[in-house]
Amino acid sequence: MPEDFKVTPWEVTGDIDYDLLQERFGTTPIDEAMKERLSKYGDIHPMIRRGIFYSHRDLIPLLDHYDKGNPFVLYTGRGPSGNTHLGHLMPWIFNKWVQDTFGVDMLFQMTDDEKFLFKDMTLGDTTSMAYQNALDFIALGFDPKKTRIILNTKNIDTLYPIALRISKKVTFSTAKAVFGFDNSTNIGSIFYTTLQSVPAFLPTEEAGKQVPVLIPCGIDQDPHFRVTRDVAPGLNYPKPSLVYCKMFPGLSGGDKMSSSDENATIYTTDSPKAVKKKVGRAFTGGCVSVEEQREKGGNPEVCAVFKYNYYLFEEDDEKLNELARKCRNGEILCGECKMCLTEKINVFLEGHQERREKAKDVIDDMTYDGFKW
Amino acid sequence: MPEDFKVTPWEVTGDIDYDLLQERFGTTPIDEAMKERLSKYGDIHPMIRRGIFYSHRDLIPLLDHYDKGNPFVLYTGRGPSGNTHLGHLMPWIFNKWVQDTFGVDMLFQMTDDEKFLFKDMTLGDTTSMAYQNALDFIALGFDPKKTRIILNTKNIDTLYPIALRISKKVTFSTAKAVFGFDNSTNIGSIFYTTLQSVPAFLPTEEAGKQVPVLIPCGIDQDPHFRVTRDVAPGLNYPKPSLVYCKMFPGLSGGDKMSSSDENATIYTTDSPKAVKKKVGRAFTGGCVSVEEQREKGGNPEVCAVFKYNYYLFEEDDEKLNELARKCRNGEILCGECKMCLTEKINVFLEGHQERREKAKDVIDDMTYDGFKW
Repeated sequence: MPEDFKVTPWEVTGDIDYDLLQERFGTTPIDEAMKERLSKYGDIHPMIRRGIFYSHRDLIPLLDHYDKGNPFVLYTGRGPSGNTHLGHLMPWIFNKWVQDTFGVDMLFQMTDDEKFLFKDMTLGDTTSMAYQNALDFIALGFDPKKTRIILNTKNIDTLYPIALRISKKVTFSTAKAVFGFDNSTNIGSIFYTTLQSVPAFLPTEEAGKQVPVLIPCGIDQDPHFRVTRDVAPGLNYPKPSLVYCKMFPGLSGGDKMSSSDENATIYTTDSPKAVKKKVGRAFTGGCVSVEEQREKGGNPEVCAVFKYNYYLFEEDDEKLNELARKCRNGEILCGECKMCLTEKINVFLEGHQERREKAKDVIDDMTYDGFKW
Repeated sequence: MPEDFKVTPWEVTGDIDYDLLQERFGTTPIDEAMKERLSKYGDIHPMIRRGIFYSHRDLIPLLDHYDKGNPFVLYTGRGPSGNTHLGHLMPWIFNKWVQDTFGVDMLFQMTDDEKFLFKDMTLGDTTSMAYQNALDFIALGFDPKKTRIILNTKNIDTLYPIALRISKKVTFSTAKAVFGFDNSTNIGSIFYTTLQSVPAFLPTEEAGKQVPVLIPCGIDQDPHFRVTRDVAPGLNYPKPSLVYCKMFPGLSGGDKMSSSDENATIYTTDSPKAVKKKVGRAFTGGCVSVEEQREKGGNPEVCAVFKYNYYLFEEDDEKLNELARKCRNGEILCGECKMCLTEKINVFLEGHQERREKAKDVIDDMTYDGFKW
């Protein structure tokens, strides 16, 4: 069966078949029974309801553990290779919901070493980009008392001994099979995955007892955490549980918003004017002429503007369905729809940019082990 | 041409053909012209005179650099996999002579991470063994103001960013070719060599200008430093220069003293009684009976007791030649020779053990970046 898409931690291309990906990776669908169970803890998040966070590993035992009164810790991260865009915020917003709903501690790892190794960037570049990205993370309102930001190069004294123990359990064979490495891969990239495993084990290390973690992240990160889960029992750590989301779409209609297409990417620091321009150019499901669209209607299934509402900017299902109906009927045209989305994004970004500025005052207090940026 | 020996950083077996090794590694003999040049700086060390330190890389440009009034830094190290024995002290004694003769700063790296990765030891084991080994190093009298001890797991915050930059320049192909790794090698072992390169670049990093290092060490470590030298220019660091020694012989007649044969290994903490017993059992070049040896003489070429005098315990060439002559003539028998060596070792160890105790008072002051043991 030929596949016209590729999903690895470092490359996402093509039209992703998320069901096939789930099958290939061996993860479990978040089905109706799981949604039902999750609704016990509060209103389930739209990203669960809409199948954006759509797959998991071992979420059931994690919830069983929690239901018995035991804590877990949230862990997610960011590879600081560029400015934060809306696609990065999406899983973080979900993490914030999990923190609020379950009242748990959270680790946020910034992998400045990874991006140095895998991209054409200096360590100075990736470390300062980590600072910029961390401001966006903090701006989303994570509890400053319950949230710690790890920066790999600054916290390496804590991370390295655990990374060593992980690395002793992972052969090059495994790394090759999981990540597609070959003889031309640099030896830093080969070792790197150990660093991404460490935060899954830190809570147990710190507590001196088994504290499992839940990792909500993009499904492209699954290869790393397959390794994490494989080595855990041999090191007497609990296997992490995971919930995986789909990739946030690009404005040009692609399956993933990507920094490499700046005009189709909305950054958290974009001006209202820039947002207007970018949304104005978005790929839609409209027709070539107003007349045709009034008559035949648009197609929200393929429309980037509709997807933005679906993924992030219209939490109300009724309103979303109404929008889809109007589009299909030709009642609303692309221009109006783009204006509405522009307005929503700009309202969000105005508040976000203010909170992002304020984040500069607390960023040092939220670092792991108290490092200074 | 079949070879019945193997020399890698992790395994030394068989009868080593040091000339062939030099040829295979592509290092340069320390010839008469080099000995002549070295004698300009003071009496050359017996280990140079006797061809124990017998091979080098780029020693000439290093001396040219020094002759123009520029400093270099000494760098050597220890993989803390067991208690210190006389074989470990040998290259350190030579390093001490270089420090005294050239008045240079010195870095001593303890690779507790390496030994964890390559041996069946915990990190706790290798880190505490590093402490024990460091006491022996200090006991040899290195200038406490000019000497800093690096412990990889404790100094990783300084080492890691440089290790990352090195790792980005080394492919798995290279690591495979240089170290003989294969698909079953763990990914920590693959990455490790970067850590051993770092101290060669630290002096330049600290000074903000090119400060080359000289690394006196066993020739088994050459594979690591071939990598170091290959990556140096691309990172704007000077290539390290090296002087290589042969392996210190075992008491049982093997080519390398090894901790795996405890009875043929003299540890720095051995009692006079233990030394007597071990030397008493040493492999010699004697005959089966006193009568035969008085008549035919012994063979110092193959004798472990003679080698100990040659490598460490008889610095006076005339006395050494006299001992060889007497042995060959049957004038001195193995028992007497063993008694003499036992006496010399015990006199040395008595002083060493005292200095080793005192080292506990200064060890914290000699750590790199001031870490506490």
